Amino acid sequence: MKIGIIGSGVVGQTLGAKLVELGHDVALGTRDPQKLDDKKNMAVTLREWLPQVQNKARVVTFKEAAAHGELLINCTHGQIAVDALKLAEAGKVGPKILIDTTNELDFSKGMPPGALAGQDRCNAEKIQNAFPNLKVVKSLNTISAPVMVNPQAVGGGDHTIFVCGNDAEAKAKVTELLKSFGWKDVLDLGDISSARGPEMYMGLWIRLWGATKTGMVNIKVVR
Amino acid sequence: MKIGIIGSGVVGQTLGAKLVELGHDVALGTRDPQKLDDKKNMAVTLREWLPQVQNKARVVTFKEAAAHGELLINCTHGQIAVDALKLAEAGKVGPKILIDTTNELDFSKGMPPGALAGQDRCNAEKIQNAFPNLKVVKSLNTISAPVMVNPQAVGGGDHTIFVCGNDAEAKAKVTELLKSFGWKDVLDLGDISSARGPEMYMGLWIRLWGATKTGMVNIKVVR
Repeated sequence: MKIGIIGSGVVGQTLGAKLVELGHDVALGTRDPQKLDDKKNMAVTLREWLPQVQNKARVVTFKEAAAHGELLINCTHGQIAVDALKLAEAGKVGPKILIDTTNELDFSKGMPPGALAGQDRCNAEKIQNAFPNLKVVKSLNTISAPVMVNPQAVGGGDHTIFVCGNDAEAKAKVTELLKSFGWKDVLDLGDISSARGPEMYMGLWIRLWGATKTGMVNIKVVR
Repeated sequence: MKIGIIGSGVVGQTLGAKLVELGHDVALGTRDPQKLDDKKNMAVTLREWLPQVQNKARVVTFKEAAAHGELLINCTHGQIAVDALKLAEAGKVGPKILIDTTNELDFSKGMPPGALAGQDRCNAEKIQNAFPNLKVVKSLNTISAPVMVNPQAVGGGDHTIFVCGNDAEAKAKVTELLKSFGWKDVLDLGDISSARGPEMYMGLWIRLWGATKTGMVNIKVVR
């Protein structure tokens, strides 16, 4: 499948590499594709990343990535997600699925960061409202990048990931993609307003990370 | 142990009954102990509750409950927790452990309720700041009342409960009490600011409740 990734930090790079490995045609969108040597936060430069994916992906603008993908994945920082999608002209690409992986984290007051999500502050809802043409599916925001594409690395994969969104078919397609990553328990939480749940959960995730001293951690919904 | 419970709704009644069963000396604090026939939200009247605990507990005022307990448990609605503790004159009882079980839920806009917790809105921190004499331990707010006292009823008990607070000895004592309820995985998240985590998690819990259609649900931290 043609996949366009918006955002080229550690999440975009990690998902991009896994998707290339699975045979997808990936365009990794970055603000300025000329700047291949910028040191990305917690990730390699894009010049280093390209050989890691056997140069089978392309590094392009946000706009080119949005045009390229049959399915889009938003991997920017939470606070700039809507602006990045505007730069990507995501409103003009017609109906497409967008997986929103973002969290709004506040690093301005030191560690641990603050999780800014709340009942009235949900990035996925904000994106869905700003881009009615997109079928936004919230997912992947509840784990660190290495766990996203390798759930088996934590407790043998016996834990849960969520999908939230208004379009059942879009959620089914995203669920299929997650299963191809190795996810076994994909829980549909409901419409896009249910994305408040996994976004607010980031407040707990930050503390689990602190208490367990590892990002290789997740939750299993036991019922 | 002498235990004072502030709040006589379903959480106070359920914890009170379990504590009586375990042989503790329980005083259940309610706003007006004369009103034994008030129908409590989702719970029985206090007149019905007393024989359920073989009349081994007393129904008293908030103030009497706070004075009675060597250990206090706050089971009021989240929004009135500080006010109820002021009515209880909790500031005058000397240093005592207070387990804070509260969540701030907004039922004013219909179902599902909104979870009002956030990075800057944490009930346990607010209580700790208002009552420096109390050793506040956040716990029990992440599951429904029946699960609090019977973790085995969900997935055989293989899931996690949290404690947060500034006092290590207080957290150890609360952990011991939780283990007496049957909890096996009690995870210490850190100081009282870490209570933001379990409080914000309520945003996800509400959605898990909606998706699984049961309150008999919890999360296991997999690491």
